[in-house]
Amino acid sequence: MSLMKGMQSIEFETAPYLVSSASVVGSKEAEGPLAKQFDVTNPDDLFGEKTWEAAESTMQKEACTLALGKGHLKPEEMRFLFGGDLLRQGIATSMGVETFQIPLFGLFGACSTSGEALALSAMSVAAGYAQYVLAVTSSHFGSAEKEFRFPLGYANQRPLSAQWTVTGSGAFVVGTRKSHVRITGITVGKIVDYGLKDSQNMGACMAPAARDTILRNLEDFGREPKDYDRIITGDLGYVGHRILLDLLKGKGVDLEKQHLDCGMLIFDQKTQDTHAGGSGCGCAAVTLSSYILPKLMKGEWHRVLFVPTGALMSTVSFNEGDSVPGIAHGIVLEHC
Amino acid sequence: MSLMKGMQSIEFETAPYLVSSASVVGSKEAEGPLAKQFDVTNPDDLFGEKTWEAAESTMQKEACTLALGKGHLKPEEMRFLFGGDLLRQGIATSMGVETFQIPLFGLFGACSTSGEALALSAMSVAAGYAQYVLAVTSSHFGSAEKEFRFPLGYANQRPLSAQWTVTGSGAFVVGTRKSHVRITGITVGKIVDYGLKDSQNMGACMAPAARDTILRNLEDFGREPKDYDRIITGDLGYVGHRILLDLLKGKGVDLEKQHLDCGMLIFDQKTQDTHAGGSGCGCAAVTLSSYILPKLMKGEWHRVLFVPTGALMSTVSFNEGDSVPGIAHGIVLEHC
Repeated sequence: MSLMKGMQSIEFETAPYLVSSASVVGSKEAEGPLAKQFDVTNPDDLFGEKTWEAAESTMQKEACTLALGKGHLKPEEMRFLFGGDLLRQGIATSMGVETFQIPLFGLFGACSTSGEALALSAMSVAAGYAQYVLAVTSSHFGSAEKEFRFPLGYANQRPLSAQWTVTGSGAFVVGTRKSHVRITGITVGKIVDYGLKDSQNMGACMAPAARDTILRNLEDFGREPKDYDRIITGDLGYVGHRILLDLLKGKGVDLEKQHLDCGMLIFDQKTQDTHAGGSGCGCAAVTLSSYILPKLMKGEWHRVLFVPTGALMSTVSFNEGDSVPGIAHGIVLEHC
Repeated sequence: MSLMKGMQSIEFETAPYLVSSASVVGSKEAEGPLAKQFDVTNPDDLFGEKTWEAAESTMQKEACTLALGKGHLKPEEMRFLFGGDLLRQGIATSMGVETFQIPLFGLFGACSTSGEALALSAMSVAAGYAQYVLAVTSSHFGSAEKEFRFPLGYANQRPLSAQWTVTGSGAFVVGTRKSHVRITGITVGKIVDYGLKDSQNMGACMAPAARDTILRNLEDFGREPKDYDRIITGDLGYVGHRILLDLLKGKGVDLEKQHLDCGMLIFDQKTQDTHAGGSGCGCAAVTLSSYILPKLMKGEWHRVLFVPTGALMSTVSFNEGDSVPGIAHGIVLEHC
């Protein structure tokens, strides 16, 4: 039996389990709708460090430590670590996970990185290359504003289409040990470029990629939207969410009932001044750990398509006039 | 039979083949010792583009196109693409491979990325997740100087321990179709940090990681240096090469006979003013394609351990006083 499913998907014969997970977030997330579901909320967005970058590394360290602890596992039991972030040269991850001394695959998929990390984690475990692996991603409002826009001290104005980078890190142990959630399949995304150049409207830049991956997943697995309890994108936010639903309607696919977006779930748009919603590598990761997985673990949801979305850009590409292409990876999560 | 070998390695039951490869390089490489072995040398380091970044993307595109062509394969036959580069947010890859529309895993492992890409490629093919995948990495002297040091126009002075970033891209098709070289095993590297902070002496920063991965590979597979015709690191250069041999001697391992380094092979130190040698994601990749693989294909060498080495740093981490940790991945290549 081929493990390759359709054009871009894999169906796992022996589906690996999501053994444990953890979420660590900052002060703004602690004031949002998911506040009570996170494992750690810290009113100090510097997490005791001197720089935003070190703070982000510390969040990754804490998230990994917690995920390992909740699974009663040690770092040395992790065969590989798949990790990434939004900073140049993935420095939050390199500095954050060094201490664990786990063989490392560094990743970059912009805000889709949690999907990329979970896909490669599941592939490794299902193939028998590992008993346990660790997947971790993070983002930080302070380090991301500095990296992509302006240092916070400049107090620059943000348009209403802009999103608020989540300060948070989510870590996941994927392995062969039973839990109540399995990764049964994945759909690996392609770069989708509609030619949009507005880096302050990333929802619009990423929505076409989400559309592409969701349609491909449905086709590859021979499913309809109703076969999923929820289809949850990473960080399209309010603007991207609307565009995604419209794009899918154009293909005769109605996702009104199933669609949720982590960028819309994590902040209260009315009271938190976060404009078009949350974003960042950490957004999808901490929402998966705190909100989506518990519902799957309990069996409240039976099958979810988790679709982290990424905008592939740097300040250099933006300044040189390039468009902002998107990418999205689909992870099929099932209660068992 | 377990595929996990020792602490950090995988031995493939059905070892995938290196089906085809290609190398595309710039003007300095075209004046070096390997000039005649590259597939494409271009006297125009801008490759017809307006920016160094676009030039790097174009090199990736050309290397992929050539590797596919030499294998008589089409982009749509590639199940996944594993790619990365040194620029912030991996933009050379995102912009370079977009045109092929292959499901993408973006990677970052600094100059070890070609090893990371080949490891994940081999894992995917050996597990039955793909018939063919494409692995590509690149670096560019102009874009790297701008990213990590100063724009070329500043004409800054470089210390003798500094290396010269290779302008080049190497692409590899890994698949189930027979060739005369197989990837029989991999050793995934950990982050190794000796606390060095000199980003202008990356050979010294990376040598401890190369030491770690080589020792681990020998132990995991129960081999001695003489079991390899050559053990070839990515871009330690003259400084790192000496440190590596000394570090290994301290562990009772003599690598004088087996060791080569791509950073020493690609430029002529006496005539090319490249100081401690070549470096960059492209260095190991183009040397593998142009120099190492042909010798393996012909059977001149029977077994080679290819060990691309990376320095995990960004200008931000450097400016904030962080050390420069290293990472290295081992790829076992065998003639068949």
